[in-house]
Amino acid sequence: MIWCRFQSGKDVSYGIVDGETVTAVEGLPWGEHRKTTRTHRLGEVKLLAPLVPGTFYCAGVNYRSHVIKMAAKRNAEPKFPEKPDIGYRSPNAIIAQGEAIVKPKDAGEEFQYEAELVAIVGKTAKNVSREKALDCIFGWTIGNDVSERVWQRGDRTLWRAKDTDTFKPMGPWIVTGLDYKKMRTIVKLSGRVVDDFATGDMIFNVEDYIVAMTKYVTLHPGDVIWMGTDGVPSNMKVGEVCEIEITGIGTLSNPIVAEA
Amino acid sequence: MIWCRFQSGKDVSYGIVDGETVTAVEGLPWGEHRKTTRTHRLGEVKLLAPLVPGTFYCAGVNYRSHVIKMAAKRNAEPKFPEKPDIGYRSPNAIIAQGEAIVKPKDAGEEFQYEAELVAIVGKTAKNVSREKALDCIFGWTIGNDVSERVWQRGDRTLWRAKDTDTFKPMGPWIVTGLDYKKMRTIVKLSGRVVDDFATGDMIFNVEDYIVAMTKYVTLHPGDVIWMGTDGVPSNMKVGEVCEIEITGIGTLSNPIVAEA
Repeated sequence: MIWCRFQSGKDVSYGIVDGETVTAVEGLPWGEHRKTTRTHRLGEVKLLAPLVPGTFYCAGVNYRSHVIKMAAKRNAEPKFPEKPDIGYRSPNAIIAQGEAIVKPKDAGEEFQYEAELVAIVGKTAKNVSREKALDCIFGWTIGNDVSERVWQRGDRTLWRAKDTDTFKPMGPWIVTGLDYKKMRTIVKLSGRVVDDFATGDMIFNVEDYIVAMTKYVTLHPGDVIWMGTDGVPSNMKVGEVCEIEITGIGTLSNPIVAEA
Repeated sequence: MIWCRFQSGKDVSYGIVDGETVTAVEGLPWGEHRKTTRTHRLGEVKLLAPLVPGTFYCAGVNYRSHVIKMAAKRNAEPKFPEKPDIGYRSPNAIIAQGEAIVKPKDAGEEFQYEAELVAIVGKTAKNVSREKALDCIFGWTIGNDVSERVWQRGDRTLWRAKDTDTFKPMGPWIVTGLDYKKMRTIVKLSGRVVDDFATGDMIFNVEDYIVAMTKYVTLHPGDVIWMGTDGVPSNMKVGEVCEIEITGIGTLSNPIVAEA
């Protein structure tokens, strides 16, 4: 099933997508809800980011080849994480499908996408076993963990490298019932394929993270977990469009514009 | 003015505190609101954390003497931050005035408070000048940035060291119209004073952070900025009560209990 959050006129609601039609739903996808009789053509509504997360978790370094190749670029030894230590990103930076990623005036050339699978938490979860880990995940969407590499290397935290306004495109919608271990992530810059990797080829997979996290923290409906990226991301230039497809979910597409 | 968020029976609302009385308010303190006729004795309601933040910012390392003394404990050279790079904490960890800080079974002896001033954002702010920086701050509360030091030193991120459930007491309420540069922060463990410092003696003050942050990120009503701590925090033991007073705001008091 495909769930979106959309705006039509002044009304904002969740909706169920069926082909070219979206039906408005009252309530939350992961809570009590009921279908309304209001339907729209998908092309006539504005898709919003599928949710504003309560807590915005992000795995960061989580694909082996990404670690090896990024280290090689810095002439450094690759350093693999020893355990699933989760990190955070910031809700202020979230934008929706189609909205512009704004490159700040003082951002450098190494202004890059990171294509990430996003798990949407649908149930409260604490002390979860490996077997039941995925039961708390409602569905899946796509995230672009936009990064300015000079800031990432030089600042004490990742705040402006990763969380400047518009640096966290998320969408286009949430798809339920998928097996993330069978999916591929494909990135295009203005139509040219720049990355293509197995989505499930993680150092610590979604279950690993959920087991480790819920030993200490309670996951709540509406939290999101971004799962990291593979490969060596390319620079994005103003005027290009960054498209991230994850098979089974869809495509998250955002143009790059210069700060006014 | 003192604003709290409270629960009475099943009702949750904001309220204005006047002496021993709280008057329920409809709406948000930093938005449209109106006083109701419902009043309660303060002792008869349950105080909640004053808000669930949209984005939970935290300055981290931000007092000179804290940096010097914490480095000395590790036989390391003190390393001062060169600019106000903001960090993040996680909403899942927030608890209210009076609620228990739960020490995990595998947490070590170095289980410590950090007494912090918290700025509550009340207006949308981007590209703010130093002169107008404090205009976006609605009021002030107190935070306890509970930290497990072994995890803090050993993990790749601060997630469980700082953001385990219950590790972020915040409250007891929000006070408006204060000058944080004239306040003192006093910490007691079960009545014994263990820290006492000038709240405003920061490496980068609130204005510095707001100017730097809003060059890249938009602050939104309901965001919070925790401003860091001074001194060398003491270990908290199960059975003790940690009280943080900031003059002009009040006292945030939380008992330490063992994980069941």
